Amino acid sequence: MNKTRGRVTLPSEGNFLNETKELMERWGADAIRDSDGTKLDDDIKQLDAKIYTTYFVARGHNDFAENRIEECQQLYLMSMFNTAVSETVEIDFMKGYFTEQVQPDYIHDPKKYWEVIDRTTGEIVEPDNWEVDEENNCVRVKKAIPWHEYTVSFLVFAIWDPTHMYNHITNNWGDKPHDIPFDVRGPQSNEYMRSFLTQWLRDNPDTDVVRFTTFFYHFTLVFNNLGKEKFVDWFGYGASVSVAALDAFEKEKGYRLRPEDIVDQGYYNTSFRVPTPAFLDYMDFIQKFVAEEAKKLVDLVHESGKEAMMFLGDNWIGTEPYGKYFEKIGLDAVVGSVGGGATLRMIADIPHVRYTEGRFLPYFFPDTFYDGNNPVLEANENWLTARRAILRNPVDRIGYGGYLSLAYKFPEFVAYIEKVTDEFREIYDTIKGVKPYSGLKVAILNSWGKLRTWQTHMVAHALWYKQIYSYLGVLESLSGAAVDVSFISFDDVISDGVPEDVDVIINAGDEGTAFSGGEYWKNEKLVSAIRSWIYNGGGFIGIGEPTACQHEGHYFQLATALGVDKELGFSLSIDKYFVQPVKEHFISADTTTFDFGESMKNIYALTEHTEIIEYSNGEIHLSAHPFGAGRTVYIAGLPYSEENSRLLMRALYYAANKEADFKKWHADNIYCEVHAYPSIRKMAIVNNSMEEQTTVVYDGEGKSKTVTLVPSEIRWEAFPNEG
Amino acid sequence: MNKTRGRVTLPSEGNFLNETKELMERWGADAIRDSDGTKLDDDIKQLDAKIYTTYFVARGHNDFAENRIEECQQLYLMSMFNTAVSETVEIDFMKGYFTEQVQPDYIHDPKKYWEVIDRTTGEIVEPDNWEVDEENNCVRVKKAIPWHEYTVSFLVFAIWDPTHMYNHITNNWGDKPHDIPFDVRGPQSNEYMRSFLTQWLRDNPDTDVVRFTTFFYHFTLVFNNLGKEKFVDWFGYGASVSVAALDAFEKEKGYRLRPEDIVDQGYYNTSFRVPTPAFLDYMDFIQKFVAEEAKKLVDLVHESGKEAMMFLGDNWIGTEPYGKYFEKIGLDAVVGSVGGGATLRMIADIPHVRYTEGRFLPYFFPDTFYDGNNPVLEANENWLTARRAILRNPVDRIGYGGYLSLAYKFPEFVAYIEKVTDEFREIYDTIKGVKPYSGLKVAILNSWGKLRTWQTHMVAHALWYKQIYSYLGVLESLSGAAVDVSFISFDDVISDGVPEDVDVIINAGDEGTAFSGGEYWKNEKLVSAIRSWIYNGGGFIGIGEPTACQHEGHYFQLATALGVDKELGFSLSIDKYFVQPVKEHFISADTTTFDFGESMKNIYALTEHTEIIEYSNGEIHLSAHPFGAGRTVYIAGLPYSEENSRLLMRALYYAANKEADFKKWHADNIYCEVHAYPSIRKMAIVNNSMEEQTTVVYDGEGKSKTVTLVPSEIRWEAFPNEG
Repeated sequence: MNKTRGRVTLPSEGNFLNETKELMERWGADAIRDSDGTKLDDDIKQLDAKIYTTYFVARGHNDFAENRIEECQQLYLMSMFNTAVSETVEIDFMKGYFTEQVQPDYIHDPKKYWEVIDRTTGEIVEPDNWEVDEENNCVRVKKAIPWHEYTVSFLVFAIWDPTHMYNHITNNWGDKPHDIPFDVRGPQSNEYMRSFLTQWLRDNPDTDVVRFTTFFYHFTLVFNNLGKEKFVDWFGYGASVSVAALDAFEKEKGYRLRPEDIVDQGYYNTSFRVPTPAFLDYMDFIQKFVAEEAKKLVDLVHESGKEAMMFLGDNWIGTEPYGKYFEKIGLDAVVGSVGGGATLRMIADIPHVRYTEGRFLPYFFPDTFYDGNNPVLEANENWLTARRAILRNPVDRIGYGGYLSLAYKFPEFVAYIEKVTDEFREIYDTIKGVKPYSGLKVAILNSWGKLRTWQTHMVAHALWYKQIYSYLGVLESLSGAAVDVSFISFDDVISDGVPEDVDVIINAGDEGTAFSGGEYWKNEKLVSAIRSWIYNGGGFIGIGEPTACQHEGHYFQLATALGVDKELGFSLSIDKYFVQPVKEHFISADTTTFDFGESMKNIYALTEHTEIIEYSNGEIHLSAHPFGAGRTVYIAGLPYSEENSRLLMRALYYAANKEADFKKWHADNIYCEVHAYPSIRKMAIVNNSMEEQTTVVYDGEGKSKTVTLVPSEIRWEAFPNEG
Repeated sequence: MNKTRGRVTLPSEGNFLNETKELMERWGADAIRDSDGTKLDDDIKQLDAKIYTTYFVARGHNDFAENRIEECQQLYLMSMFNTAVSETVEIDFMKGYFTEQVQPDYIHDPKKYWEVIDRTTGEIVEPDNWEVDEENNCVRVKKAIPWHEYTVSFLVFAIWDPTHMYNHITNNWGDKPHDIPFDVRGPQSNEYMRSFLTQWLRDNPDTDVVRFTTFFYHFTLVFNNLGKEKFVDWFGYGASVSVAALDAFEKEKGYRLRPEDIVDQGYYNTSFRVPTPAFLDYMDFIQKFVAEEAKKLVDLVHESGKEAMMFLGDNWIGTEPYGKYFEKIGLDAVVGSVGGGATLRMIADIPHVRYTEGRFLPYFFPDTFYDGNNPVLEANENWLTARRAILRNPVDRIGYGGYLSLAYKFPEFVAYIEKVTDEFREIYDTIKGVKPYSGLKVAILNSWGKLRTWQTHMVAHALWYKQIYSYLGVLESLSGAAVDVSFISFDDVISDGVPEDVDVIINAGDEGTAFSGGEYWKNEKLVSAIRSWIYNGGGFIGIGEPTACQHEGHYFQLATALGVDKELGFSLSIDKYFVQPVKEHFISADTTTFDFGESMKNIYALTEHTEIIEYSNGEIHLSAHPFGAGRTVYIAGLPYSEENSRLLMRALYYAANKEADFKKWHADNIYCEVHAYPSIRKMAIVNNSMEEQTTVVYDGEGKSKTVTLVPSEIRWEAFPNEG
């Protein structure tokens, strides 16, 4: 294979010119970026590479932000729960918060902007019945009802940018000044962000790509009184709130938000909460504003002849790449961090940009690059999970972050990345813009739909949580599977029904969450639409607590279609006779052991028609059921693994009633996959594991042969001749 | 020990006189009973023993019941869920029911007494929009909304007594006529039951005790189309329903019940459902009626010079021994089956009777008494669990059931029971009427309170269910523990607060059940009363999902007091820092391994003050927390075992803030217990296991000594001299 070049971005740093040149050569890099805390030397900027420069819009300008507290960013916070032990309650509302990050907003009248709530009844306490002691950051509630609980929802100024705060504290930056985030909704700030960028563009002629990190509002990240993370929501709109925003919202939407619309009982409208209409309005309002303002900056960048790239993270709130205003921003590119297949697709599938870029793992940081550790392992794992997704829809570029000098000390790593970058370019050059073979069309159904494309069940970006991994496996499996995936919302189905071309709908999540749907399942239009669609031949896969909402004799509102329900104790009196698993089943044909992750308890079959595939510990964890001409499948949980990816694929084909098509472009070894590209008559046979694998490979006509692949191998083959 | 006699009842049978005499002698029996299917010979009736004779009030009189269908017992049943695939739905409402047990009531107008419900919306379908096809047992719904689900709630006649049906089918009684249950609410039936009993009392001069088996209404037991159990609720009022009852209810309570008030979405108001006001009214109405009518029968028995005993089971519905009408019946005795300590206390604690009797296990049936099996083991286990409870409050008599001739073939069993009966009499003679030492007063708090004394979390009598054993352990542990136990309801607390003398309240159960409380926990009076009580020094133990009801930022409504809550997904964004278990804790001081049974997932600590005692798999299963002057304890589940009994006792003392008293009258070996009787200055040291045990025993002053007990031993000791 000839040495190829391009589509790769390197980080660099000061005093590292020769090594940078060497690595550019070996990895075929055509772009160089700075990082948080590193600056590029002039000689590096003169290399034959595009130069990315990190740009902060709303922080890192303390000379402007200082003494402009009235345009500082804000947050609504909720105090702890305080039990009234008498008719007076003193609420130390700042308890647990980090005074270096937030300080109460006493500029705007608390009686207007704050709320004291009786959390026992949910009622608002009359403002006349409480007062603020500004000196002690204390709210005194009078005429409280003893033994009720009270909270204060209060506005603060956010006086420290969360990412800066995190880095500052983590790296012991001592008395280095804190980046104060300002709100570009403020007139001075708005003017400043534009004039500063205009000047900056002039001052940085070597910059080819302005890497916005990012725009205006950081995802919600609140620290506690010990300076540690207290609340993190990668999707959180918390930091977009301000008095100015609230007033503008009222003007735009015709009604005023309550603090409770933001504070949400202390849950702060995380993406696990079924969104309220008011919060959806608020998100829309912020997105529109962010798009309008970001467009102004992007226009300035374009006028200067440079490209505008957005980092998918940090201050990305309101950009919503899958939302309806994103296109208007006019960005050239989006770059984001790749934790696996699902996060790769989250970046690669973003519409309305010219190119996307994935920042691969590991970061060149000392936590991985230390003596005795082999960073190749992590890189290999990251590449294999991402490659599956790249074979479905590649990002246009890959890149790395951190200290290049650190990576340079690991020659095996340097050699491995040389191989990866070559392999990436080969894949890209072969399949970019080519539609891969898809056996099925799958729709993920939840409260968010398209807006949260490849973004369901995530709390902090790509971090593991006990309560999510059993659902994230669904996305991770699908990210590299030979199916088309779309994301649809309950509201979509309620207003337009199920899209014509969908083969299988998946509803996955814990009861009451936005992903399962909660009270949505009482909506008769929704359940009718889905029932009718399944009955007429659709496939439906429920995972965890699908369609769950106790109502009129069912917990799963589609229990009759699913053939299973969950025993909450109310129906213990009903004998459960259907406990016998089928001897074999299409869905479990490749399964050696089941792993349902956190799994689900007390699932039982409703009829003898329920095909019980796995039954243990007195409960069902995997089953199928016919409903009219359609089919449903129930799975108790699906953490990511090769076995579970296969299980899900079989479940999808079974639900779709297309078992006959299952072996088209198929590898029978679960560690291997076939990605076919009919229009160019090529296929890639991949070994997703770090061991040698032998597999039978089936082509589109069902013809098979046996191949053996070395660890991690990708083998390109032309289609066999027709006839 | 001298041979004692009395307090024991034997079953007997035909042609078994000499052996009966021998066993009477050896077991000290002073009463003989017949059983279902056995009749006593005259010579046996002449023995020196009281004769119990089984009496059926409302079944076993087919000569009367036949051709009186209008006074036959009735049930409300719900059809299966039927999905409308067009605007017409045909509902085969009898599908899944056993036509030998039930037949639709077409005598009373279905349009008046039946309901068709749209289960998608919960709305009643106008009677004009459906019609009954009596020939085909079919309801045809017109103008249905396609893809909604429909059910029919319909009245049936119950033409076969469930116990008779069960025995008939189980024992293959072939064409033996089916006992038809009649409803004594009918005028002819009412007259008949009295006149028949009057004559029967004359005809049975040898009978000393009329053993009512039982009165009027069987617990709900419905069979399916295959003649197998479909629905069983030992507390179910289903069979008490009739057109006559519904009409009388309206007259008495001033409003009419809907079928839905009985059918309850197909859950039929099992005791796991938080009872509705209408259903509580209905239960009250039935109890009052049953008490009035039963009293008439009991009066007849008394007039004939005999005793009236009630069997706690079968047709016992409405008697409610812990209800407010039970006293009025005027019974002499109650007899019931003893499955362990909790069921023993359920019998022994019944008020307003002169004596109680426990029927011990095993039954003398071929399923236990067969060649190669050793029935002593089961008897020993049954006795040891029951003995703990007997030492707290003895039943007045014990007895056995089944075929005496079978037991007679097992000489070791005969010898063992000889020992048990002697031991029982020794205990009884020593402590009957003597108040045992109690270290604490414990109240079980749920929707039912006193009415379901020792009866919580039960489905079918003393049967194991996966969803209940982790809660039943609480009752079983308490049944033989040195604490006073009461049962209080949420309504009690709402109207009267927590009783003065309670040390610890226990709330145990799955979310939404009557035992946990469901929506009750939104009642501000309830939560205020409990919070205030704990804060002022009370102890509260929550087990499973205590106080659970998602509302205003908490899942556990007493989360602030408990110091823990359950993560449902809404608060994943909040960092959970409190995960470090305490090094040691009073509550777990005797624990070697934890067993939380079904356990509970995703419980987390809210504050640093939460004393985490057990933390594994990323979640808390045992913790404690201070709240004001009071304390709370959280336990994820408590199946019965000696370890868990000890854990619970320690949790109780800890919650009550009385650790200093824990070792009063205490055995440190968990397989041993001390039961002290201060007023007679005696204590019993018991070995609850079938192995030898050595234990340190503490007296009331904390003085200790070491004793070794043989398997199952009970050792009586006088208190040490004072001073």
